[in-house]
Order: sequence, then structure tokens, then C-alpha cells
Amino acid sequence: MTGRDQIIAALSGVVTPGCILTDSGDMQRYLTDWRRQFHGKAACVVRPSSTGEVADILRCCAEMNVAVVPHGGNTGLAGGAIPDDSAGQVVISLERMNRIRALDATALLIEAEAGVILQTAQEAARAAGRKLPVSIASEGSATIGGIVATNAGGLNVLRYGMTRDLVLGLEVVLADGTIVNGMRKLRKNNAGQDWKQLFIGTEGSLGLVTAAVLRLVPKPRHRAVAMVSVESVDQAVSLLDMALTSVGETLTAFELLSASALAHVKRHFGKEAPIRQGNWFLLIEAASSLSGLDRAFEDLMTTAFEQALATDGVVAASEAQANALWALREHITEAESRAGYSMKHDVSLPLRSIASFIEEFGMALDAIDPHAAPNVFGHLGDGNLHVNVILSDTAKAQVIMQTVHDLVATRGGSISAEHGLGQYRLDEWMRLTPRAERELVGLLKRTLDPRAILNPGKAVPGNE
Amino acid sequence: MTGRDQIIAALSGVVTPGCILTDSGDMQRYLTDWRRQFHGKAACVVRPSSTGEVADILRCCAEMNVAVVPHGGNTGLAGGAIPDDSAGQVVISLERMNRIRALDATALLIEAEAGVILQTAQEAARAAGRKLPVSIASEGSATIGGIVATNAGGLNVLRYGMTRDLVLGLEVVLADGTIVNGMRKLRKNNAGQDWKQLFIGTEGSLGLVTAAVLRLVPKPRHRAVAMVSVESVDQAVSLLDMALTSVGETLTAFELLSASALAHVKRHFGKEAPIRQGNWFLLIEAASSLSGLDRAFEDLMTTAFEQALATDGVVAASEAQANALWALREHITEAESRAGYSMKHDVSLPLRSIASFIEEFGMALDAIDPHAAPNVFGHLGDGNLHVNVILSDTAKAQVIMQTVHDLVATRGGSISAEHGLGQYRLDEWMRLTPRAERELVGLLKRTLDPRAILNPGKAVPGNE
Repeated sequence: MTGRDQIIAALSGVVTPGCILTDSGDMQRYLTDWRRQFHGKAACVVRPSSTGEVADILRCCAEMNVAVVPHGGNTGLAGGAIPDDSAGQVVISLERMNRIRALDATALLIEAEAGVILQTAQEAARAAGRKLPVSIASEGSATIGGIVATNAGGLNVLRYGMTRDLVLGLEVVLADGTIVNGMRKLRKNNAGQDWKQLFIGTEGSLGLVTAAVLRLVPKPRHRAVAMVSVESVDQAVSLLDMALTSVGETLTAFELLSASALAHVKRHFGKEAPIRQGNWFLLIEAASSLSGLDRAFEDLMTTAFEQALATDGVVAASEAQANALWALREHITEAESRAGYSMKHDVSLPLRSIASFIEEFGMALDAIDPHAAPNVFGHLGDGNLHVNVILSDTAKAQVIMQTVHDLVATRGGSISAEHGLGQYRLDEWMRLTPRAERELVGLLKRTLDPRAILNPGKAVPGNE
Repeated sequence: MTGRDQIIAALSGVVTPGCILTDSGDMQRYLTDWRRQFHGKAACVVRPSSTGEVADILRCCAEMNVAVVPHGGNTGLAGGAIPDDSAGQVVISLERMNRIRALDATALLIEAEAGVILQTAQEAARAAGRKLPVSIASEGSATIGGIVATNAGGLNVLRYGMTRDLVLGLEVVLADGTIVNGMRKLRKNNAGQDWKQLFIGTEGSLGLVTAAVLRLVPKPRHRAVAMVSVESVDQAVSLLDMALTSVGETLTAFELLSASALAHVKRHFGKEAPIRQGNWFLLIEAASSLSGLDRAFEDLMTTAFEQALATDGVVAASEAQANALWALREHITEAESRAGYSMKHDVSLPLRSIASFIEEFGMALDAIDPHAAPNVFGHLGDGNLHVNVILSDTAKAQVIMQTVHDLVATRGGSISAEHGLGQYRLDEWMRLTPRAERELVGLLKRTLDPRAILNPGKAVPGNE
């Protein structure tokens, strides 16, 4: 292994000295994630300010066989941006590459460097009368490079898709320092192999994303928000079907919240749903350039009551009411963290198997640890559940995780709907993924990263 | 090279005899594309009826080092499904794998084998109250495998994206016969590397697509269609911007038609636009679950007239009128083919450079061949132009193509917006694509197809 001093000396030769952090205090914020679940050490942290500098760093590290760990806004939930504890890896923070290079409201696209904060890009889009439709809790810190590298999901996937669906162009630096410039400002390009797809969602394990061209969408001018309480997940699925038929493409969110998730919100923040409680709550949002959504939501609600699909419900009569309903959803994660140490599972399931999954999961958890409290919520419209568990006994964490994932795998689901594998779920992915798929993914990793220096141990299996 | 008899004998050992066509008459329809632009020969045509059979065929061909050419509905425009003229390649037609395996209206997905006709899948979705939003002229013959392998575009890309954006799961057979099953019925799955992307749009050059899970969308219940005449492309772009702000996400088509393209339609089909002529016509469509689009289109038109952006315009007052406006657009290709031999260029450009491109292209064409007639139309909302040329002198074809592509390349455009590279555009792609990109694409090809037996000479550069 190359020694720390040697690494720092070599890197000092290729980047300006101010780029390199070596002091342990200075490095600290790059070595632990925001939830303090993952901790690592690094030889140093490098903060390049241009694509050329990123290429120089990679070429230098490749020569020394030193691994690099790209680092964005540090808001990931799977430890993808945190180095291992060998103190032999180099963290590359893209934070200084923070320029919005271009924005075209008519062509509906924005061109931004990896370090641009998502919220900054959203605001630029909004100022131009358009919308960058990635909406995640961490948008004030998450970066463009980070959302591309993790293929971030969020609250609007039902309508606008994952980050992958927004990526029109990418600039990438390969393991050997080669810059591949695919920053085409085109909404449509079907010229052979779309190689940029490989670098989306792979957390820097195949190459480093230094800039992206992202698709914008028109800004809807009207929205409607409703909250409904239902007795069962089956009723929720029936309501989803009904909403797809009546308000269709205008749906932007169809969120499922368990009564217990909202009970935590009430306990810790004093916020409460303005409707009678069922076993489950639904938060439904639609948005359009056309008016008439409130009326459509009222009609939907009436039909739901007539067909005995809902216990109670309300359509927000003002923006303030709409925001108050959303605040219930947005406080779930924080309330959960105040309730105790929680494990997060981020699964997706075929829609029809969600009810059976939740039932079996409840029974299984009860058998493993009757004191553990499930906290289930998620994006029902996408089949994405956050199956979190507030633990009483951390010794049970591993068996609980495997149990959840086994229940998901037998139903053809995914153990990572939107958070990514990172370092947290890679072993589980290896355990549950069929061999042909593992080998294909491994083959591509070895091809693009023959020295295994690109964020090893994250997102995809390595050379071992 | 393995002899024809040897290939047929070996394949007869792994598939049922009725699967193999060897008679030149029987093979004919697999050896020429529908426009009769590309002609090939084959050792034989194999028509497997299961994924297992496809795997057996590939294993057998890999052992013999014999190349395979996957064949769908034979509606491609770039010769991707036609073998070379060596008579040493095996055509694999997926037409017998034509089962819709599942459709879930609430989960908004359809699971179909490669040989299912696109229109059959569209009708199944419609019967379930949903929509499969790929709309192409050849949908009555094109197959699911074909639209995935070519990443088909079409009339609704502005609203729903390319085929890639609809693919949720794929089943693929690799060069060595390994089956990789990624048929997950999930709308959201972010578990590491999304390997299925490699097989979308690569025309079987990295692996053969045998089945797909595709995303459906809610069926809009209202639509509005308008036709507007404008004097310049700049005015058209201004109108696009205005439409994005006023009817936004409801826009499903924003088509640009040159006056000369519609003149061909009038000459050959007697159909005429019901409005005063400008240099350009726009065909604008929007669709929504909500009503109010006609009114919004009338308002848009009023503003356009006030700002002197349009010469004349009409909003269809009935479905019959809407269909009549669309018929003008839909007859352009057929009218063009009646007008003479035409070359098709399928380019995309940054929106702001379209006007200058068209102007320079007109001057360049005039200099090369004053008798050649340009026929320009396309999906302006996507920046996609079909820059077709009705030739008087086919000797000029090559220089015209290179001229068009050079004008595109200098503007950062793509020489294949939606039709794919096939065999038709691969040399041009090689000529105009920067080295780093070419090498990355070539590296992936060699990795997944080390013997160069997967549709060689199509979509991506080979081993040579």
C-alpha cells in the first residue's frame, strides 16, 4: 500500500496546494455521514475546482493504485461517500465545482457542475419559470453530482421519474483519468450506446461525474393536496387505481403513511392529521397547468366514500392547509430519529404484494423482537416503502434486515428502491441477486476499473 | 468461416426443425428492409419460440463463431435488422415470442415478449384504461423487442420520453447464451448498476432482448389540437416557449412542418392545411385528464397573434378536425416517397441553433445540387428534425449526408435523434465522435461480445 505521505506528496505535484486537506480536523466532515452511521479515515481530502484537475488526480491515484471516494453533499443514506477505515483512500470532494454553466427555459435544460447544490439548481429553474423535478428532504445540501451518482428518487418520482430520467448529458472522468465529454444539450439523442447510463446510480464506482445536463419540466400552476384515511393497504391501492383513472398524469405524489408514523409526529412535534384516524393515511397531490384539480379531488373523495374505500378525508382549501398536510409527511423522519435508533429499509415491491409484505413483516418482527417498533411509510404510487424499525436491541439489527430483504426478494422486489446500495446494502445485494446478474455487473466493473480504485466496496461488487 | 451446411446442421441440433428457414424464398422477407434500402444474405433464419431456445442458438453460434442478427418487425430505418451479404450470418427472428405475459393497470406496467407487435400492446393497455405511450408510424408491425433494441422515439417523446424511459425490466440473452433475467415489475429500483440500459438502443450488439416490462401511463381524457402558420423557425421557438408556460406538461406534440413538405402532401394526396400558409406550419397537441385545453389553446393563439408570432391558426373544433390536421403530418413520409428517391437524415440540435442550421443547410444543398429538394419537418419540441432530401442525382448522396452531419456536429447536435445508427450511420458516427467516447463504447462492445458475433457492424463499432 502506498503510504500517506507519498500520496499527499504525489497529489501536491498535480493540484494546487490549497486543494488538499490533510489535517484531521479539516477532514472530519468528509469522513462521517450526516446521520453518523458510517465512519472512515482518509489519506487526504482533495477539492479540485475543474474537470482537468479531477482527471489529474485520478491519473495520479491510478499510477499509485490508490483508491478514490467521490464526495458530494454528504446526504446519502447508504454510506456511499464515506471512505473505508484504512486511511489509505483519497476523498475527492466536488464542492468547488459549483457553477451553473447554462440554463435554457425553452429547451428545458440546465447544465451544472457536480458541486452545484440541488436547491440552487431548483431555484435557478424556478426563476426561469421552469422546474427541476427532483424533490428530496436533503435538497439544501445534496449536489447535482450526488443525485446523479446515486440516481436520487424522492417525492415526485411518480410523475417525473428518478434522476436518471432527467439526465440528458454527462461529463465523466474514467479510472485512468480520461475525460469523456457527453454534455450534449439535446433532449433527444439516439446515437448508439448510451454510455452515460453506466455512471448514473453507480456512486462513482465506474467513473466520476463532474457535470451534467439535466432536463427541466414546465412549472405547473395549480395544485391540489388531499389527505385520506383508509383501513387497509388494499383500500389504498384501490384508491390509487381510481386516482390514476380520474386525475391521471397530474398525480405528483401518492404517499402512504402508517397511523404509527403519524403518532410519532404528534408525540414529538405536536402535529396531527385534521381527519379521523384509520390504520393508514394517504397524502395525495396533483399538479397541472390547468385548473380544476380541487373539483376533481372532491369528486374522487365522494366516490371513495360511496364505495366505502375511505374512512375520512380532506382536500386542502388553501396553500397553507396544503403545506400543513405535507408537514405531517415531512416530519416523519425527524420524529423517528427522536423516537430512538432506527434502521432504515428502502424497498420496492410489486403493488399487489405490498399488503401481504406488511402483514408478514409485522409478524416476523414481532417474533424477532416484540419491543421493536415498525415505522412504515413511503411512496405507494411507486411501490416504494420505507420499512423502518425503531430498535430496542441493536443486536437484532442484522437479522431484522435480512428478514425484511428476504420478504422483499421472494416477492420480486428490490432492496434499494431509491437510496442506493452504497456500502450499507452491497452484501445484501450480493446475497440476494442471481448469479448471472452479479457476474454481468462484476464484469463491467472490472472492465472500467481494472485496478479497483473507484470507490471500492460501494454500489457494485469489486474484483475480489 | 463456418460453412452454411455446418451452421444449419449445428442449429438443427439445438432447436426444433420447424424453427429454421433455409429456403431463399422463405428467407427473403428477413433479408431486406421495408423501404428496400438494405439487402443482405443469411446462412439461415431461426425463429425461436422461447428464451431458452434463444440461449441455445446463441451458445451454438458462439461455439462456431457465427454472427447473429436479431430481427423484429423489420420497420427500422437504419438497416439494423438486415444481415451483411456474406451469407454467413444467422438471422434470429423473435416473431414467435409474442405473448403478453402480464398487464397491471394500477401498477401501470405491461410485461411482453420481444415479438409482441407494438399495436397489440397499445391495444391491451387501452383496454385496461391506460396508455403505452410509444407512437410511431410503423406501430402495426414494429415489435416490443424492436422498439427496445432501437430505443424508438416517435410522436410523443416530448411528453413521455423515448422507449428507454419506459423500460422497467428486461430479459436479455448474452453472447455466450447466458440468460439474464431483469424482468422486475417495479416502478422504482435503484439497486446499483442498471445494467439493462446497455441493451436499450444498441440493436442487439451487446445482447439480445427477449422480453421487457414497460411502464404505462394514465390515459388522458381530453385533447386539443391546433395548427398555426409562422414565418420563421425563431417564431416557432417563441411559440414553443409560450406553450410550455401556458399549457406546460400537457403538451404531447409540437411538430414543425415546412411549407414544402405540406406541398408534397397536397400534390400527392390532395390534402391541404385549412389555414393561410406561412413558411412553416406548427402542429400542436396537448392532452390531459382535466378539461380546459381548447380554451387554453385559443388563449395561446390570441396571444400569438397579438405578438405577431403567427400568421394564421386554427384550433380543431372536433375529433374529426383534429384527425384531419394530424393526417397532414402523417402523410408527409408517404408523399415524400412518391416525390422521388429521398435520403433521410434524423438529426437533433440545440433548439437555438435550429434556425441557423436550416439556413446553412439550404445554402449548402443548393451549392451541391441545385435540383435536390429539401423536405424538412420534425419534432421541434424535442429539437429533432427530419432533414430529408429528394435527390435528383444519387451520386451526390454521400456528400449531402456528410454536409448535413457536419453542420449538425459543429452545433453539438446528434446525427441520430431517434432512428438509431444501424448500419446506415455507423461510419458517420465513427467519423464525428470524439476518441474518448468511441473508445469507451468499443471497450464495452469487446467486453460483452469478445467474439464479435452480436449484430456486427450495427449500432456500435466492432473489434476491428
